[in-house]
This record gives sequence, structure tokens and C-alpha cells, in this order.
Amino acid sequence: MVQLKTFVCLAQLAALALAVKPNDYQRVPDQEGQYPRLGACPDKHACIFPPTESQFLAGGYFDLRVELHAYDEDTTKPVPSPFTTFKTTVRKNHGSWKDASQYFHASVPPLEQWHFNWTQSIETKYAKQLALDAKPVDVAVTSRVWRKLQFKQPGVYDVKVEYGPKSSYVARYTVVQPTAPKQKAKNVILFISDGTNTGAITAARALARQHTSGKYHDLLSFESFDELGHVITNSVDSLLTDSANSATAYASGHKSSPSALNVYADSSADPLDDPKIETITELIRRRQPGKAIGIVSTAYIQDATPAAFYSHTRQRSVSGEITRQFLHGVPHWTDPVVPDVFLGGGAEYFSGNKSLNGTDFYKEVTKAGYASVFNKKDLTKYNGKDKLFGVFRQGNMDVWFERNLYVNNTVGNKANPDNQGKNDALGSDQPGLQDMTLKALEVLKKRGGNKGFFLMSEAASVDKQMHTFDYSRALADLIELDVTIKKTVEWLKENGEYEDTLIIVTADHSHSFDVYGSVDAQFMRSAKEGDRLGAIGVYENAGFPGYVDEDGDGFPDNWHPEVTLAFGTNNGPAHYEAWQVSANAPRYPSVTDDHGVIVPNPKDMAGNFGHGVLVNNNLPFGNTQGVHSMSDVFLYSHGPGSELFKKTFENWQVFFKMAQALGLGESNQ
Amino acid sequence: MVQLKTFVCLAQLAALALAVKPNDYQRVPDQEGQYPRLGACPDKHACIFPPTESQFLAGGYFDLRVELHAYDEDTTKPVPSPFTTFKTTVRKNHGSWKDASQYFHASVPPLEQWHFNWTQSIETKYAKQLALDAKPVDVAVTSRVWRKLQFKQPGVYDVKVEYGPKSSYVARYTVVQPTAPKQKAKNVILFISDGTNTGAITAARALARQHTSGKYHDLLSFESFDELGHVITNSVDSLLTDSANSATAYASGHKSSPSALNVYADSSADPLDDPKIETITELIRRRQPGKAIGIVSTAYIQDATPAAFYSHTRQRSVSGEITRQFLHGVPHWTDPVVPDVFLGGGAEYFSGNKSLNGTDFYKEVTKAGYASVFNKKDLTKYNGKDKLFGVFRQGNMDVWFERNLYVNNTVGNKANPDNQGKNDALGSDQPGLQDMTLKALEVLKKRGGNKGFFLMSEAASVDKQMHTFDYSRALADLIELDVTIKKTVEWLKENGEYEDTLIIVTADHSHSFDVYGSVDAQFMRSAKEGDRLGAIGVYENAGFPGYVDEDGDGFPDNWHPEVTLAFGTNNGPAHYEAWQVSANAPRYPSVTDDHGVIVPNPKDMAGNFGHGVLVNNNLPFGNTQGVHSMSDVFLYSHGPGSELFKKTFENWQVFFKMAQALGLGESNQ
Repeated sequence: MVQLKTFVCLAQLAALALAVKPNDYQRVPDQEGQYPRLGACPDKHACIFPPTESQFLAGGYFDLRVELHAYDEDTTKPVPSPFTTFKTTVRKNHGSWKDASQYFHASVPPLEQWHFNWTQSIETKYAKQLALDAKPVDVAVTSRVWRKLQFKQPGVYDVKVEYGPKSSYVARYTVVQPTAPKQKAKNVILFISDGTNTGAITAARALARQHTSGKYHDLLSFESFDELGHVITNSVDSLLTDSANSATAYASGHKSSPSALNVYADSSADPLDDPKIETITELIRRRQPGKAIGIVSTAYIQDATPAAFYSHTRQRSVSGEITRQFLHGVPHWTDPVVPDVFLGGGAEYFSGNKSLNGTDFYKEVTKAGYASVFNKKDLTKYNGKDKLFGVFRQGNMDVWFERNLYVNNTVGNKANPDNQGKNDALGSDQPGLQDMTLKALEVLKKRGGNKGFFLMSEAASVDKQMHTFDYSRALADLIELDVTIKKTVEWLKENGEYEDTLIIVTADHSHSFDVYGSVDAQFMRSAKEGDRLGAIGVYENAGFPGYVDEDGDGFPDNWHPEVTLAFGTNNGPAHYEAWQVSANAPRYPSVTDDHGVIVPNPKDMAGNFGHGVLVNNNLPFGNTQGVHSMSDVFLYSHGPGSELFKKTFENWQVFFKMAQALGLGESNQ
Repeated sequence: MVQLKTFVCLAQLAALALAVKPNDYQRVPDQEGQYPRLGACPDKHACIFPPTESQFLAGGYFDLRVELHAYDEDTTKPVPSPFTTFKTTVRKNHGSWKDASQYFHASVPPLEQWHFNWTQSIETKYAKQLALDAKPVDVAVTSRVWRKLQFKQPGVYDVKVEYGPKSSYVARYTVVQPTAPKQKAKNVILFISDGTNTGAITAARALARQHTSGKYHDLLSFESFDELGHVITNSVDSLLTDSANSATAYASGHKSSPSALNVYADSSADPLDDPKIETITELIRRRQPGKAIGIVSTAYIQDATPAAFYSHTRQRSVSGEITRQFLHGVPHWTDPVVPDVFLGGGAEYFSGNKSLNGTDFYKEVTKAGYASVFNKKDLTKYNGKDKLFGVFRQGNMDVWFERNLYVNNTVGNKANPDNQGKNDALGSDQPGLQDMTLKALEVLKKRGGNKGFFLMSEAASVDKQMHTFDYSRALADLIELDVTIKKTVEWLKENGEYEDTLIIVTADHSHSFDVYGSVDAQFMRSAKEGDRLGAIGVYENAGFPGYVDEDGDGFPDNWHPEVTLAFGTNNGPAHYEAWQVSANAPRYPSVTDDHGVIVPNPKDMAGNFGHGVLVNNNLPFGNTQGVHSMSDVFLYSHGPGSELFKKTFENWQVFFKMAQALGLGESNQ
């Protein structure tokens, strides 16, 4: 529907391109539209990746891909001939243009050719559902890709592609070489609370902390950190984001497209040929050898956020390949990260039939010099100096509720990391974020020594449980992160690392979560259908919920108080809400019925069907869960370099700030 | 329903009270419950206001009220005799207890007696709707109130009430005398964006700023300020808040109960006898005479937020009395504030039949030495040195949309400030927040001279339009605030006041607002009912909306782009949502039908009934609008003293930080 407007915009853009001198760069705002031809690709025919406005560290590696798109938007017409001749040139600081291959001292890459289907409108996207005769546009692509390039000097660089009779498109890059701050950070710990907004922080505090006359006795552990900032989370080609490209921004300094990990998404079908950008972990391996690297997550360890710290692919779902990259990296690139500590779920991709080509990666892990652990007990007792590998479950690790409150829920999951399909990964056998993070710190200190360490530790299931409206489980995992951070600070102090460590606590994107009142749980359960909402108290009748923490472990002692909170998000498929804790399993609030329609799960809320109120769908076809939201996220930071993380900044800048704090900008090799 | 649990908690509290020495203070966490007997009143029979944990500036004025409650929760039993004898004592820094009247050199106040009904449960609250025979508890109250007290020295103060055979309750206060920061703030400008969360800031940026490859060209005006903090917004007796008690926290340093303005809510029926606390504006009048004070709002000027800077009442709705207090203040208290600049709506309370006792306050305003203006033209041309009074409309001023885009919508409102019931207050005749704020600055500089000024300027309708899901109107008023702040900074620089001015930009509470995708508006309008949600794009299909600002005025040039944003909150009465701009009038999404049921307004969305999707109710009986949410709000600050506003703090602390920045703590008189 937006095509007409897009054409107008493209026409304006073309007019603008004519108005400026052909060699000039013009920063054109992103154009309106839900269905662009390809993300970050504003020209009518030419695409340059990395896209215009990209920033690099001097000497940081990247691939450069140029694509030319020949197509006719009238899908009844034949596809035009591809642009087989085009010229790519580069200039530095507004100097003279040089042929790209000469500029980079590279051989001329072969001309690649392929086709892709451009879903150019809603009508095309939903042609089947709407019974419309709308076809995607067939685009004939020609492309060249230069691998493993560097800009070694700071400055402004332009890349131009010239094609057709007299068309051209210019992308502009900035290359920086930041000096380290007054006090360099020897260690960086990056805590990522996936899918967590400020509303969730407020709610976690309400559950885990006490107050008198409404004044809190104390705040969450990271709220006393040196600095608070806000992070803008959007993608290179959308105001919304997923965990892959948002983690990419943190890991590499580049916004990318949803699903992409440390690459810009090109139009080819191959999810492994997209133009790469170097990650902070790769840079550490190159520039600060000896520094230890740890990756910890409560998700499957190939999930987007952890994978962003060791892999490159356009498609986050290629978990087998991502597992391979953990040890072996990618061709034509720098050495693989091979983290010193690697802890999480996702066992099924290490052996058995989900493993890439049936490889036994457990054996390869051992061959690579790792000590391996597969349960909480062995993790806890590990005190060696070898690299530490631990996977504790197939898929995502169980959440705090199933590891601590409802351990019997894990019986029968057949998710044991032995991948034999017979044994369970019991909740009580799985370590939590605290166990994994503290063990990681021990190992990283031993291995990094004076060189220090970099640790990424992810509370992954805050996001996963927000997606399914299981707010109590989401908040329990967020509170687990709070306790983990408290213990981390204690560990750093006890081990003499506190003054040298930059700690960052942030999220990668928001969910639209907030609390709008309280709920009298018993009234909600017992009232007749039409009366149930009387259980909700707003404004002065919200009063206070009944969560208490008398044992002082940082978690509420009771998750079923008589007065709980009226949690909610602003989007979702049709589902019921009764503000009850689901005791038998994490919630699955919506299911697909026999007719393919997404309906409220009749078994939701522990079988209390009919208890609660109906929330209608407000998502497009096919969404079985709530989706991410746009709100900026918090970033708390403490220690050397924290002064760089004040006020509002973009997600991609987090990479540059971390690199600066670590002194990674001091080299340009 | 929570009564049983509350009894248990009270029993625990009683046991605790026995365990500690009778003179000791024990900080007991707030108790669970939606229906407390009276807010901030945890003892079974005794209440002390200000409540325990209150903080004061040394020498700050307050009233002290003690109440004793005699009652039987078995409502079939007769009400017990009131506690006619009780003893109130005070001690400083754990010293010896002294009789309160002696301690404060005050006469013994008379014993007051009354009854009030305690709605002790949901069943009682909804007895009528649920046809239950549940009665509120009749409470017999005895009380004494000491007016206009001070603690002149910093320290810890305890107030004890002893009653019955051997019962007692102790409240603890802290009195502080903060020293001014390195550089004192000569001026403070406090911008309050009512009901605005971080999600709204993110959305305003998306509408008003451009980006390339997803990277913003620039941020909102206040995002470059020195510091960013988060404010905890809850009430003294509820995790939720309204604009009265949240503005009270900013104005006085005391959390209070919803609806209360610079008083703690006692149990008496009289909304004007509740114990008061001194406001920052009253303190300025006493301690920094000559400093000019301005109050500006786009709401009616008696609305909660502006009223918190010049009035005291338990009930924010007594607008006639609040109007009187603007000039005449309250008895037994300090001098009235009588602001140097007073601009907003609410004309109907200044003359005519809504005016208190039919008083012509317009005449009294003139008698008090004000110059008066009633439209934008006269406001703009005012260049005198007299105090400036301006009301421009009855009720709330029209929003930016009606003042700028749809000025014809204001025809027929009969809301002219002449209160003749005949003439309209035309949108084009009403100044906006920018006009009022810049004029206020001119006048305040003239009047304050070297003594400086304090200005509170409120973007009131962000909240009001969020309540009714008119997100475009809410965001337009938020963008108007952004532009106002930009112009304010320019004015301060041009007038040599920039270096001496602390600027604060905050909200008083959140709405659960966020963006979860984009909307193809034409598809939404034209698709069949079941297909409409296909118009929504999430994740990568959110793409970018079509707002542009080519004329550079800081506002989008187009409010109806083809691709708009999928806005939403997490609560509301039943209504439709179509993500369209309501052109004919601000939205009223829900109405009460002939049977008293709240239903979607059939005229909502400019008469496009049926266009959009149904959102079900998730609020208790009687709520015709969305309600506030709990999430912490942002606080941006710039200039001298801004270093005090970092990280996370509570709303009541904003008063102390402003007072400290202004050097108001240097006296203890």
C-alpha cells in the first residue's frame, strides 16, 4: 500500500542525487515503508554493505559487498537484464576516487549472480491469506564482495558504485581511533537482561524490595552503579529489533537487520555469505591476546545474544553452523573466538541428529582443550585452569521457577545434555545464572591473569517469559540477575578486581511491560466472570502487594501473595489473563487450533480455563507470542570507563564505548 | 479478601512491637492490601501524620496530626468507645520524650472527634454491584492537630502516641540541612511532562527526528542535558500514583496519597483540615524573598500539578477553593505563594457560577497587582514588570492539534475565559506551552533580577491524551515540550542566564505506553475486518514510519503518513483501536451506554465505526479511561546542581535536590 509513496520518495531521492555534485555525499533520511527491497539499501538499484553512516574502529575488519538490482515492479513484465558492469571506487577524506580492489590491495572478486523475490507490499505478503493475485518482484542481482578489509587510519571514507548509463550511489563511513579513558578497564562484564524495559526493573524492585510509607529500604543491586544511560535499540532498517541484530550492535558496533549476527543482510539465499563485521571478542583475540573471554547464557548457547559474541550469519536459526563456528570460526576471516568459558543450554547441537553433519562436537570441545561439565554439581566443583565448557540442557535452560520452586516440572523433559533422548535435565541439576557467572569469573581470572577478561552474561529468559506473558517467571529471572550482580560485585571485591572492572547492565530491547494496579488473587479466582475485574485495584486501591523477603536472599519468599500486581503488555495474540502464577509449567497463553487460527490456550493458567479475562489479538497473522517494543532501554554502568555510558546513546555506540574503555582503539592493526 | 492476611501481618507487627523495647523505633515494611483503613497508618489504632520515615528540611513547616481509631471489624457489633485519652510525645536524637505541646511550645490542641467509614474489602467496595450485604467498618476517631511546627536542627526525631492500657506507636522523622552545591542554581526551571514514560520519549523522537541507516541525526532537545536519572513515582500508601500526590512529592518532599496536595490525608471529611507540609514555593517566599515564582500549565491552572505549587488540600477536585488559595493561601500557615507568573486554563473558577461563593477573582487578581491577559495576542505583547496573570480557556487548554492543525474543532466550545457562556476560546487565540513559558521567563527575569526565579512549566495534556489513547495528540504535546525546551535554552543563552539555571525535565508518573510495530494506514482502513491486522508490521516488517520534518520546526509536517506506528498501552476500558488520527475532535474511546455499561464509543476514530480492532476491558468497574502505570520515569537535568539528579531516586527526593541546588537549606528559620 505504501508503494506509491515509496516511489515518490525514491523520485525525490533521485532528484536530490541529481541536484548534488555526482561525487558528493548526501545524507538522506531513511524512507517510509514496511516492505523495502532490501534493508539499508536506499538507492533504486545499488546497495553497498556496510551501509552508509557505518562507523569502524581503525583497523577493524569488515567485508564490503556491492549489489546491483535489476527488476521491474510490474510483475507481469519480464525481468530486466542484470547490471553486469558496474564500478566500485573508494576515497578517503574527500580525496580522489580509487578502484576498490586497488585501494584495498585486493584481487578483483568474481562477479556473483542470483535472483531474489522482493515482497514489495502487504498484498504480496498476505496474497495467500487474502486470496490475492499479487506476486513478489523478481530481482536479478549482480554482486561483488571484498573480504576482510580494513581502514587503518581514522577519517571519512566514501564508497561509490557507478552503474548503468550515469547512475551512482555513495555510502559514507567514519573511522575512529578512540583513546583509552583516564583509567582503562582491565575487565569488562556485560550483563544483558534480554527483553527488559524500565517497567520490568520497577516491578522487580516492587517484588524483591521492601518499603515503609512507600519509601524503598534499598534499591536493586545495580541501581547504585556510577552511571545510568538510555540505549536506542532500533535496527538498521526498522524501528523494531530482535535479539540478533541488537546483540550485533553491542558486539560489533553495527546496527543490522533482524535475525542477522555480525553481518549485514545481503539478498542472496546463502545465510553464510553475507558481509561480516568484526566483533569485540575477535578484536580482543587479535589486539589483546591473553585476555580471557567468557560467554554465559541461560538460553541455548547458540541463541542470538550469546551467538553474537562468537559467530557470523545472516540467519540466527542456523544453530548447527553456529555451534561449528564456536570452535572453527568462518573462512576468510580472523581466528575463531573459542571462548575461555562457554556455559549455557543448547546441548542438542553438540551431538546426535541435530548436530551439524552429525559431528560429535563434545569430542571436538575436548580436543580443543576444554574441560567439560554437564550439571550444576560438576560446574560447582570445577577448579581447573583449562578452558571451561558447560551445557546443561537441550534448548533453553529451565527458568528460575523450574530450577528452584517447581523442580518437578522438569521431570520427563528428556532434555539431558547427553542427547540420548532418555534422560531428563532436572531443574535441580542445572546451574543458575549466578552459579555460571561466578564460576566464569573464577576461570576467567585464572586464565586472563594480568591481561584481564571480557565476560558476557545473559539473563535470557526475561525476554522469553515476557513473550508468553509469564510475568512472574520473567521477573524471577530478572531478580536472579539482580542477585547475580550483587554476588559478582562481592566476588570482584574479594578478588581484588573491583577497581579494574567495568560492569555494564543493559537490555537489548524492550517489551511493553508495565504494572497498572494490583490484583486480589482470591477474588479473581472466586468471582463470577463478569465481576472478576473488581479484583483489580488502581490508583489508591492498588495499595501494596504481598511479596516479602524475610530470608534476605533477594527473592520474594512468596510468589502467590493475596495481593499481586496487575502486569501487562500492549500486544499479543488472543489469550486469557488472570494474573495467576502457572504452577505446572511456564505459560503458553496462545495455541493454534485445528483450523490454523491462533486462539487462547484452553490449558493456560494451570488449567483454570475461564478464570480471567479475554485479551483480544492485536498482532498480524501468524504471531503466537507477544512481540518486542520500541522503547529505549536502561544501561547501568560502574567502574573505569563508566563515564562514557551517560545519557542517551545508540546501541551500536556501546561497542565503541566498551572498546574505548578496554583500550582496544590503541592499535590500528 | 486480603483481610485474613492483613490480620496475620498486623499480628506479626504486634509481636514485633512487643519484642522491641517500648521506646524503640522499628522500621516495619508496608503491609499488603488494597483496602487499608487509612493510608500510611500501619498501627492497629494510632495514626501519626506526617507518617513514619518522613524527611524535613531543617525549619520546614508542617502540621502534626495524631488520630486514634476505635472500631470493631465485625460490623454487626456496636462501635467501641473512642480513645479520648492518649498522649503524644516527641524526642530528638534518641533523647528523652517530651510532651508534644511543650516540645513545640504550642498550646494543647482541642480534642477533635468524628467518624468515618472504612471500606475494608473488595466485597464492601462493590457491595452494591455484587448485591452483597457487606458494610464498611464504622471507625470512631479522636484526634489532635498541631499546626505550623518546625524542627530547626538536623537530626532524628521520634513522635510517639500512647493509648489504651499500654499500647503505643512511634513514627520516626529525619531532618536534614543540605549545603548548597559548588555552584548554586540562581534559577530553577522544572518542566513536568505529565504522564510520560520512556516509551513516549522514544516515540516522540521517532516522530520528530530523522535517521539514516537507522541512526538518528539528532536527539530530542533535553537528551543532550548533563544528567539522566530515574524517578520512583509511587505513593505513600500505594504503588500507583496520581498527579496530585506525585506533584506533592516534587513540591514538598513528601509522598502522599492519591488526590492529596501538600497534605497527608487524614480520615476527616473536611478536605481542608489535613496536616500540611511546606512547599518549595512557600520556602522560596520565606527564605529567598525577591526570587520570582512562575507557574505555567496547559491544563486548568487548578489542576493537580500546578496546584501542588501553591495550594494545600486533601481533595484535588476543590477547584474553587484552590483558586482562592492562589491569592489568599490557607489559615494558620505561611504567606500565600501568589506567583509572579500564573498562566493556564481554568477560567471558570475565576468568575461566574463555578467560582467559590460567586467571588469575582478576576477583580481580586487585579487588586493583587497583576496584569491580566486572556488570549495569545495580549500575552505575546505584554512587556510590563507587573505580576502576570493569564487564563485562556475554561477547563484544560486545547491541545497542540486543536491549536495548530484543527483550529476549527474549537468553534462552539463556549469556553472563552470571559465566562459569559457565549463566546468560544478559539484554538488560534490560545497560547501554547512555548508562548507561555517564554513569556514567563521574560517576566520572571524582570521581577527576580539578581535573586533569580523558579518556574514550573507543565505539558499537561500528554497525560490527558494518553488516558484516552489519543496517542498522536499526546505525542504532539510532548513534541511541543521538546521545542519549548529548545527555545528555553536559546532564551537562557541570549539572556545571560544559561550558566546559572538548573533545568529539570521529568514526568510525574508513567502510562504504559509503547510502540510495538508500524501500521499501513490505508490497508487498515480498506481491509475487511478479519484482515485488518495484516496492516501491522512487527520486527523487520515494522520498517520505518513516514513522519518527516522538512520545515525544521521540530514537529512532523505530516501526522497521517501512510505508515504510522502501532501505539498502545496495557490497560483500558473496552474500546476500538485503528491507529488513525481523530481529525474532528480528541478521542473519547469509551462511553457509558444506557444501561450504565462502559462500551466502545461508536463515534470514536472520526466516525469510522468498525474500522479497527476491539480491545477488551481490563479495568475494574467504573473506569472510563486508561489508568496510570508504575514504571519509573526519566529525569533529565542540566546546569548547576544537575549532578544531584543522577541514577535512581524517589520522587520526594526531587524536592530536597532542588532545595539543595537553590541553597534553600542554608537557613533553618
